[in-house]
Amino acid sequence: MALWKGRLDGDTNAQMWEVNASISFDRRMAIQDVRGSRAWAEALERAGVLTGEEAAQIETGLAEIEEEFRSQTFSFAPGDEDIHTAVERRLGELIGPLAGKLHTGRSRNDQVATDFRLWMLDHLPALDAALDDLQGALVEHAEAALIPSPSPRGRREFSPLPLGEGSGVREGRPLIMPGYTHLQRAQPILLSHWWLSHFWPLQRDRERLADLIPRVSSLPLGSGALAGVPFPVDRAALAENLGFERAAPNSIDAVSDRDFAAEFLFTAALIGVHLSKLAENVILFTSAEFGFFELSDEYSTGSSLMPQKKNPDPFELARGKAGTLLGHLTGMLATLKGLPSAYDKDLQEDKVPVFTAYDTLAALLPVLAGALRTLTVNGDRMESALSPAMMATDLADYLVERGIPFREAHHLTGQAVRLALQKGKALNALTLGEFQAIHPAFAEDVYQVFDPQQSVARRASLGGTAPEAVKKQLQKAKEVMSEK
Amino acid sequence: MALWKGRLDGDTNAQMWEVNASISFDRRMAIQDVRGSRAWAEALERAGVLTGEEAAQIETGLAEIEEEFRSQTFSFAPGDEDIHTAVERRLGELIGPLAGKLHTGRSRNDQVATDFRLWMLDHLPALDAALDDLQGALVEHAEAALIPSPSPRGRREFSPLPLGEGSGVREGRPLIMPGYTHLQRAQPILLSHWWLSHFWPLQRDRERLADLIPRVSSLPLGSGALAGVPFPVDRAALAENLGFERAAPNSIDAVSDRDFAAEFLFTAALIGVHLSKLAENVILFTSAEFGFFELSDEYSTGSSLMPQKKNPDPFELARGKAGTLLGHLTGMLATLKGLPSAYDKDLQEDKVPVFTAYDTLAALLPVLAGALRTLTVNGDRMESALSPAMMATDLADYLVERGIPFREAHHLTGQAVRLALQKGKALNALTLGEFQAIHPAFAEDVYQVFDPQQSVARRASLGGTAPEAVKKQLQKAKEVMSEK
Amino acid sequence: MALWKGRLDGDTNAQMWEVNASISFDRRMAIQDVRGSRAWAEALERAGVLTGEEAAQIETGLAEIEEEFRSQTFSFAPGDEDIHTAVERRLGELIGPLAGKLHTGRSRNDQVATDFRLWMLDHLPALDAALDDLQGALVEHAEAALIPSPSPRGRREFSPLPLGEGSGVREGRPLIMPGYTHLQRAQPILLSHWWLSHFWPLQRDRERLADLIPRVSSLPLGSGALAGVPFPVDRAALAENLGFERAAPNSIDAVSDRDFAAEFLFTAALIGVHLSKLAENVILFTSAEFGFFELSDEYSTGSSLMPQKKNPDPFELARGKAGTLLGHLTGMLATLKGLPSAYDKDLQEDKVPVFTAYDTLAALLPVLAGALRTLTVNGDRMESALSPAMMATDLADYLVERGIPFREAHHLTGQAVRLALQKGKALNALTLGEFQAIHPAFAEDVYQVFDPQQSVARRASLGGTAPEAVKKQLQKAKEVMSEK
Amino acid sequence: MALWKGRLDGDTNAQMWEVNASISFDRRMAIQDVRGSRAWAEALERAGVLTGEEAAQIETGLAEIEEEFRSQTFSFAPGDEDIHTAVERRLGELIGPLAGKLHTGRSRNDQVATDFRLWMLDHLPALDAALDDLQGALVEHAEAALIPSPSPRGRREFSPLPLGEGSGVREGRPLIMPGYTHLQRAQPILLSHWWLSHFWPLQRDRERLADLIPRVSSLPLGSGALAGVPFPVDRAALAENLGFERAAPNSIDAVSDRDFAAEFLFTAALIGVHLSKLAENVILFTSAEFGFFELSDEYSTGSSLMPQKKNPDPFELARGKAGTLLGHLTGMLATLKGLPSAYDKDLQEDKVPVFTAYDTLAALLPVLAGALRTLTVNGDRMESALSPAMMATDLADYLVERGIPFREAHHLTGQAVRLALQKGKALNALTLGEFQAIHPAFAEDVYQVFDPQQSVARRASLGGTAPEAVKKQLQKAKEVMSEK
Repeated sequence: MALWKGRLDGDTNAQMWEVNASISFDRRMAIQDVRGSRAWAEALERAGVLTGEEAAQIETGLAEIEEEFRSQTFSFAPGDEDIHTAVERRLGELIGPLAGKLHTGRSRNDQVATDFRLWMLDHLPALDAALDDLQGALVEHAEAALIPSPSPRGRREFSPLPLGEGSGVREGRPLIMPGYTHLQRAQPILLSHWWLSHFWPLQRDRERLADLIPRVSSLPLGSGALAGVPFPVDRAALAENLGFERAAPNSIDAVSDRDFAAEFLFTAALIGVHLSKLAENVILFTSAEFGFFELSDEYSTGSSLMPQKKNPDPFELARGKAGTLLGHLTGMLATLKGLPSAYDKDLQEDKVPVFTAYDTLAALLPVLAGALRTLTVNGDRMESALSPAMMATDLADYLVERGIPFREAHHLTGQAVRLALQKGKALNALTLGEFQAIHPAFAEDVYQVFDPQQSVARRASLGGTAPEAVKKQLQKAKEVMSEK
Repeated sequence: MALWKGRLDGDTNAQMWEVNASISFDRRMAIQDVRGSRAWAEALERAGVLTGEEAAQIETGLAEIEEEFRSQTFSFAPGDEDIHTAVERRLGELIGPLAGKLHTGRSRNDQVATDFRLWMLDHLPALDAALDDLQGALVEHAEAALIPSPSPRGRREFSPLPLGEGSGVREGRPLIMPGYTHLQRAQPILLSHWWLSHFWPLQRDRERLADLIPRVSSLPLGSGALAGVPFPVDRAALAENLGFERAAPNSIDAVSDRDFAAEFLFTAALIGVHLSKLAENVILFTSAEFGFFELSDEYSTGSSLMPQKKNPDPFELARGKAGTLLGHLTGMLATLKGLPSAYDKDLQEDKVPVFTAYDTLAALLPVLAGALRTLTVNGDRMESALSPAMMATDLADYLVERGIPFREAHHLTGQAVRLALQKGKALNALTLGEFQAIHPAFAEDVYQVFDPQQSVARRASLGGTAPEAVKKQLQKAKEVMSEK
Repeated sequence: MALWKGRLDGDTNAQMWEVNASISFDRRMAIQDVRGSRAWAEALERAGVLTGEEAAQIETGLAEIEEEFRSQTFSFAPGDEDIHTAVERRLGELIGPLAGKLHTGRSRNDQVATDFRLWMLDHLPALDAALDDLQGALVEHAEAALIPSPSPRGRREFSPLPLGEGSGVREGRPLIMPGYTHLQRAQPILLSHWWLSHFWPLQRDRERLADLIPRVSSLPLGSGALAGVPFPVDRAALAENLGFERAAPNSIDAVSDRDFAAEFLFTAALIGVHLSKLAENVILFTSAEFGFFELSDEYSTGSSLMPQKKNPDPFELARGKAGTLLGHLTGMLATLKGLPSAYDKDLQEDKVPVFTAYDTLAALLPVLAGALRTLTVNGDRMESALSPAMMATDLADYLVERGIPFREAHHLTGQAVRLALQKGKALNALTLGEFQAIHPAFAEDVYQVFDPQQSVARRASLGGTAPEAVKKQLQKAKEVMSEK
Repeated sequence: MALWKGRLDGDTNAQMWEVNASISFDRRMAIQDVRGSRAWAEALERAGVLTGEEAAQIETGLAEIEEEFRSQTFSFAPGDEDIHTAVERRLGELIGPLAGKLHTGRSRNDQVATDFRLWMLDHLPALDAALDDLQGALVEHAEAALIPSPSPRGRREFSPLPLGEGSGVREGRPLIMPGYTHLQRAQPILLSHWWLSHFWPLQRDRERLADLIPRVSSLPLGSGALAGVPFPVDRAALAENLGFERAAPNSIDAVSDRDFAAEFLFTAALIGVHLSKLAENVILFTSAEFGFFELSDEYSTGSSLMPQKKNPDPFELARGKAGTLLGHLTGMLATLKGLPSAYDKDLQEDKVPVFTAYDTLAALLPVLAGALRTLTVNGDRMESALSPAMMATDLADYLVERGIPFREAHHLTGQAVRLALQKGKALNALTLGEFQAIHPAFAEDVYQVFDPQQSVARRASLGGTAPEAVKKQLQKAKEVMSEK
C-alpha cells in the first residue's frame, strides 16, 4: 500500500499508478537508500526519538535488506511505488510495526534528494577514472609518436602500446602530420601534439567534475518535506556520517535543489562534445582519403551488405551520443524552468537523464580508450600529406626575418602561391628567379623553409608544436594526471 | 555471429559489442521487421531473384517467426546484434541456408529505416486517438458548463460526466469564471470557453500528426546501402504492398532521412507544451488559494509525511515531462547536425527518443483524460472570485458608447480604479457622485456594467466568450473531432 | 506615455522600462501593425463603433504613417514602448484625440499576435523562394553531371552553370563518384544522384513550410485581451480582409497561441540540419584529401596568417548556424513550457528568435546557392577514388546470380577482400585461381564486376543510382519544383 | 581590404561578405582587442622581432586607437570585416606600413580567442556583483521578516527596506507563511526562511562563476593559427601581462577551446532557472488569489485595454528569458558538436549567444532586485492562509511522542483529516471525542499542535524553519556574501 494514502479514499487509478511510480528507475539507488536510512535511524536515536534497542533492531533489519540488494535476492512487490516504499515495506516484514518509526521526521522529499546525491558521489569517481584512462591512451600515443622507445615513462607507467610500425617516431624523430584549420591543410604539427590536444579538454572535464563535488556534497536529509525536522537531529553529524561536506543550509531549497543534476548533465554534455571532436577526427583519419589511422578489427564493424566495409562505429556512436547527451541536459533545465518553491512532482524527471548520461559515458569511454589503444597510425600517409604550400607561413616569416612587415610578406607569399597554382607546380618548385621576381629578398636559402621538421622546430614556445615544447607539454600532462 | 564480419578478423571487443548492439531497443520493431521481410521476399520473387518455391519457404518461416513474436515465444540469442540479425538467424534455424537469400539486394540501412517508418505508421493512430479522447474530456466539461443537461450531444456521443454539483451550469445559465492574463484577474469568461481553449491546441497537434503521415509514408526499402537495388525490384509495388504512399525517390537520401523522427519529436514536444499549459492551470486551480477544481482521489497522491496532502501529481508529471520531451527533440536534432551523406552509425540514436516520447504520451494522455473526467468544479469559488474591477474594461466601454474615445475612457476608468483602491472599496461601490466627479458621462445605469453575465454576453463575436458564441464554438469543436 | 498607465502611479523604473520595452525588435512589424489597424478601423466602422467620417480620418492618418514607414521617415519617440504605442502616438499627432478611438475593443494581446502572424505570412514566400533557388542550383549540377550539354532543360529553364571541365559528364556518360557510408567508401554512385540527394530534404522543408501556412493563417484580432470583442465586429470578414484563412475560434487560445512560431523555428532548425549535411560534405570534398570540389574564390576566404589557405567559410557557417537555429527552437519551447492560459509577458520572447532564424536563412541560402553555382567539380579525382573493393557487393551479387545464397556470397567475398588485403593488392588483382580457391563459381567474367559503370547501371530501380533511374528522378525533381 | 586575400583572386561575393563578417558583434571586444595587441607588440619586442622604436610607435598608435574607442570617435570602414581588421587598418592609417608588423606570428584564431576571454574576464565581476545585489535584496527581506527593526545588520550594511506595514515582523515575532509542496499547502514556514531559500541558489551560481574563472584565464595568444608561434615569445610573461593565470598548454586546443563559453552559458541558463523559480513564486503571490505580495507601481505595468490591471511583467520576463537562455546554451553546444580539431568557422557562432546572455542578465538582475526592494508583503493574507490542516504532520508527531510509530500515526491523522473533511469543518474543530474515537492517545493538549508558531519553532535543527535556526542561517548568508 502506498505510504501516502492519508486522507485519500479508494484505489489509485491503475494507469495513473504506472505513470506516477518511480520504482522502475529509482531502484537503482537501493544501496544509497538503505545507507541513508541507516544513518537516519542512528540520528533519530541520538535525538532521543528511537531507543537504543529500537535503533538496533532497525539497523539489523536494514543491514539485512542491504545484503539482499547486494546479493540481488531482494524481491520487489507490486505495491512498491518507489525504492523508499520498497525498503520500508520490507523492513516491516522483517521487524514488524517498529519499521513504521523509521520515517519519523523525514519525508520522501529529503530522502530521495539524499539518495540521489549519494548515488552521484558514489559514481563520480568511476567517471573520473574512465576519463583518466582515456587520457592515458592519448598520452601513450603522444609519447610513442614523440620519443624513441623504450622510453622512461615518468611517474605514471603507461602500458606499452602494441602499435604498428607507422605509429611511432620516424628515424628517431617525432612523427609529423598536417595540421588543419577549416579542414584545409594549414601547417605541419607533431602527431604527438595532436594527440595531446585531445588530452586537455578531458582534463578540463575532470576539473569540472571535481568542482561539482562540493555542490553535490550538501546533505538534504533532515529537511523534511520542506520545513526541517521537528526533532533535535544533529544534521551536521548526520552529514559527516554519510560522507557529505555539509548539511544543506535551507530546508526549502534543499528538497528542490537539482543544480547538481543539471551541472552533472552539462559536464556530461561537454564531455560528449569533446568526444565528438575526437570522433570526428578519427572518422576522417580512417577514411580512405585521409588514411592516417586504421582501427583494429576488434573495434570495427562491417556491413551486412558490403563485404569490404570496415566502419568506425565506436567513434560514430560517440559523435551521435554527444547529441543525445545534449538532449538530456536541455530536458532537465526545461523541466526545472518555472517551477515554484520546494518539491514539485516534476522533479521526478531528474533521474532517468542522469542515469542514462552516466551509463552512456561509462560504456563509451572504455570503448574509445580501447579503440585508440589498438589503432594503427600510418605515418607514411601522414608525412606524404605535408604539401609544400603548408609552409607558406614559414615563407612569409622568411621575409619578415629579412625586414619586411608581416602584412606585406603575407601578400607577397600569396603571390607566390598563386603563381605556383597557375603554373601547376608545388610552391617549392618555383625557381629562384620566380621567387625573386616577386621580391628580391628571396635568396637561395628560401628552399630550406619547406622542410617540415624546421617548420615545427621553430614553434618552440610554450604550447607550440616543436618537439622540445611538446616534450614539456607531455611531461605536464603526466603531472596533472598523477596529481589526481 | 554478426552478419557483417566480412573482411574483419577475430572477435569484436565485448564492451564495444554492448555499445554497438541495438537489440535492446530495436526488438520493439520485431513485427515490422518481419512484415518488411515478407514483402521483400515477395518483391525478390517478382524480380526473379527467388523462385516461387524459395519465396514460399521463406514466407512460411517468416510467418512462423511473426507468430513467435506475437505469442512472445521468440527466443533471442546472445549474438543477436539487432532485430534484423535475430530474424535472419531464426529464419536460418527454421528453413536452413535458404534464409541467406533473404538479404539479397537489401542492407540493414534501408531495412531499419523501413522498420522504423512502419512502426511509426502503426503507432500514430493510437496517439491520435489518445489526443481525441483527451479532447473528448474537454468537450464534455465544456458542454456541462454551458448547457443544462440532459443535452443533445450532437453527432458524437460524449459519455456523461459524473460531475459534482458545482461543475455544471448555474441556474440554467453557463458558469462564469475569472479569466487571467499575467495571472492577474482580467475579465470574466465562461468556464466552457476556458475548457475549449485547451481543445484547439490539441486539434492543431492532431493536424500536425496528420501532416506528418505522408512524410513518414515514403518507403526506403530497395535503397540498399545507399545506391539502390541491383535487381529489378518494383519499388512502387513494394511500397503499395507495405502500405506506403510512395517509394523514396533517392536511395542516398532514403537511408539517412530521419526528418520524420525529428518532426514526430517536435510534435510530441509541442503536445507536451500544450499539456503543460493545461497542467499549470489545473495545478493552480486545485490550490487552496484558487480552489476552483478538486481532483478525484483516484488521480491524486498524498504525502509520506504530511497526512493532509492531496497532490495533483498527474499534472505535475505532465508539466515536467514537457521538459523531457523537449530534451528528446533537441537531442535528435543535435545528433543529426553535421552528419555527412548516407548512413552513419550516429543515426542509431534515433529510436530511443522516439520510443520514449511515444510511451510518455501514450501513458500520460489517458491519465490526464481520466483525471479531467473525474475532476470536480467548484462553481461557487469561481463566481465569488469575479471581483468588480474585472469589469473595468466594460466600464471604459460604457464611456466609449457615450462618445468618449477609448483611450480617454481607459484613462478615466483608471482614475476610478485608483479612487476605489484609495478608498479601500470595490470599484462598484463608488458612489455615482464619485463616478461623475471623474466624468459627467457616468449615469445611474453605470452599475449595470458590473454584472459578469452582461460582460460575457457582450463578447458575442466569433470566438468570444458570450454563451451564444461559445455554443457555436462547441458545435465547431464537435464537428472537427467527428471529421477525423 | 505608456498606453497602460491606468491605475498605476508614478514613473516606471528606467531599467525596468528598458527590459520591458519591445520597440527595439517589434518595430520590424511596423507595416503589419498599420495594416492590422487599418483593417480594424474598417471593422469598427462596419460594427457601428466608428462613423464613416471617423473611419476615413483614421484611415488617412494610418495611410500617412504607413508611408512614413515605407519611406523610412517615421520618427520614433522615447516613450514608444512598442510598435503599437508608436503608431497610436503618431496617429494622435496627425489626427488628434480621434486616434484614441482606434484601440476600442482590441488589446495589444490580440494586436501583437496578429502583427506577428501577418509578418510571417509576408515572409514565408521569400524563404520558400530561397529554398527553391538552392534546389535550382542542385538540379543544375545534377543535370550537368548527367546529361551531355547542351541539354533540353524541361519546363523550368535552369541557368547554365559556368562549370569547369571536370564538373560535367565524362565522354558522354554520367560522372561517377564514390558513395560513402560511415565515411568509408561504400559503392559507386552517380554524382548527379548525390546532388539530388540534397534536393529532396529541401523539398520536404518546403512541404513543411506549406503545411505551416494554414496554422499561421488564423486571425487573433478581435480576441481582445482574452475574452473577445464587446462590439459586433464581423471577425470572419476581418480575417478575409487581412488575408487570413479564418478567424481564430477561441479568444483565450488566440492571444497565447505561439505554435506557429515554434513550428516555424522547428522547420528552420531542420532546414539548418539539412544545410549542415550539405555543408559537411562540401567541407570534406574541398579538403586536399578528397579534392572532389573546389570553391570559387568569390565564395572562399583566406587566412590572416597563412597565405596559402582557401577556406570554405560559407559552408562552415551553415554548419555552425544549424546549431544556433536549434538553440532558437529550444529556447522558444522552453519559454512556452508551463505557462498558464492566455497572455503572459513571457510570450514577448517569441519574436527575436523568429526574426533571427529568418534572417539567418534569408542571408545564408543565397550564399550557399551562389557558392554551389560557382563550385568546380574535379571529376578525375572522383573517378580515381573508385577503388575496386567498392564493387565487393557486386562481386557477392555475382555469386548470387550463380545460385549461392547472399549470406554465403557475402562471406566468400569477405574472404576475397581479406586475401587481397593480405597480399597487398587490389581486389580485382586477385588471380582467377585465387578467386576459384575461394569458390569454384568464380569464372573469367568475374573481372567485369569491377567496372563502376556496370555497377551503377545495375541499380536501375526507382530511386537507384543507374543513369536511367537518375534521369527519371531528375525529371521528377523538376516537376515538383515547377508545381510550387 | 580583407587581411586574408593571399592566394584568392577577385572580389568576395557581397552577400557572402555579409554572412561572413563579424564586425557587427565583435566590435564589442574593441578594448580587449587593443589590449591584446599592445601586449603582443611588447612580447614581439622582447622576442627581438620588433625593435624598441618599432614597438613604441605601435604602442603609440594602439593607445590612440584605444582612446578613440573609449571616446567613441573610432570610425569603422566598410571593409572592416572584424574588429582585428578594423584595428590593424586604423593602425596603418596612424603609423603607416609598420602596422603590418603587428600581426607577425599571430593569427586571428588565437587573437579572437584571446579577445573573447579577456572580455569575459572583464565582465564576470559585474555579473557577480549583480547577483550579490539581488542576494542583498533577499537578505534585506529575510531580515525584515525575522528581526524587529532597527536591527544590527552585521558586517555588511543592508539598506533599509521601505517596506509596508505587513512586510516585517508581527508583534515582535517572525512572520509566518504557508509553505507549499506540489503547490498545495504543506507546512507553516517563516517568510524569512522562504526569502533565504532563493539566496542559496544564487550563491551556488556565484560559486560556479568563480570556478569558471581559472578555465577562462588560460591565454590562447601565441598559439598562432594552430601550431604555435615561430618566434621566441615568452608566453608565460605574456599571460601575466594580460592578467591570465596561465598560457594555454596546447596551441591546437587553444584556438578552438570554447568550453568557457559553453560553461558560461550553462551558468547563465541555471541562473535563469533560479530566477524563474523566484519569478513563478512572485507571480503566484501577487495574484489576487494568493495576495501575499504587491509590487510597487514603479515595477509593474498595466494593460492597454483593461484599466484595472497591474501586471508583474519583470517577473514574467525573468521566467520567459530563462527559456531563451537555455536556447543559447543548447545552440552553442550543438554548434560545437562534431567539429574536427583546431579552428573552424563554425566557432564564429560563439559570441552572439554569450553577449546576449550577459546582456539579458545584466539588465534583468537589477530590475528584479529593484522590484523586490519595493515589493510590499501582506502579512495578514499570509497568516490567514495558515489553515489548521497544515499542522497535520505536527498532529502525527504528537502521536509519535506518545509512542505510536510514525507510519501508524500518519494513518490515524489521515483519518482525522478525512473526518474533518466529511464533517465540513477545520481539522482543529474536531472534538476531543472525535479525536479519541480515532485513537485514545489524543488528549486535551492536542489542540496546541495547531499553533503555527509552535510548529515552526519545533523545526530548529540546522536549516530548519524555526526562528533560531533561520537567524543562524541569515548570519551564515551574510558571511558568505561578505567573504566574496
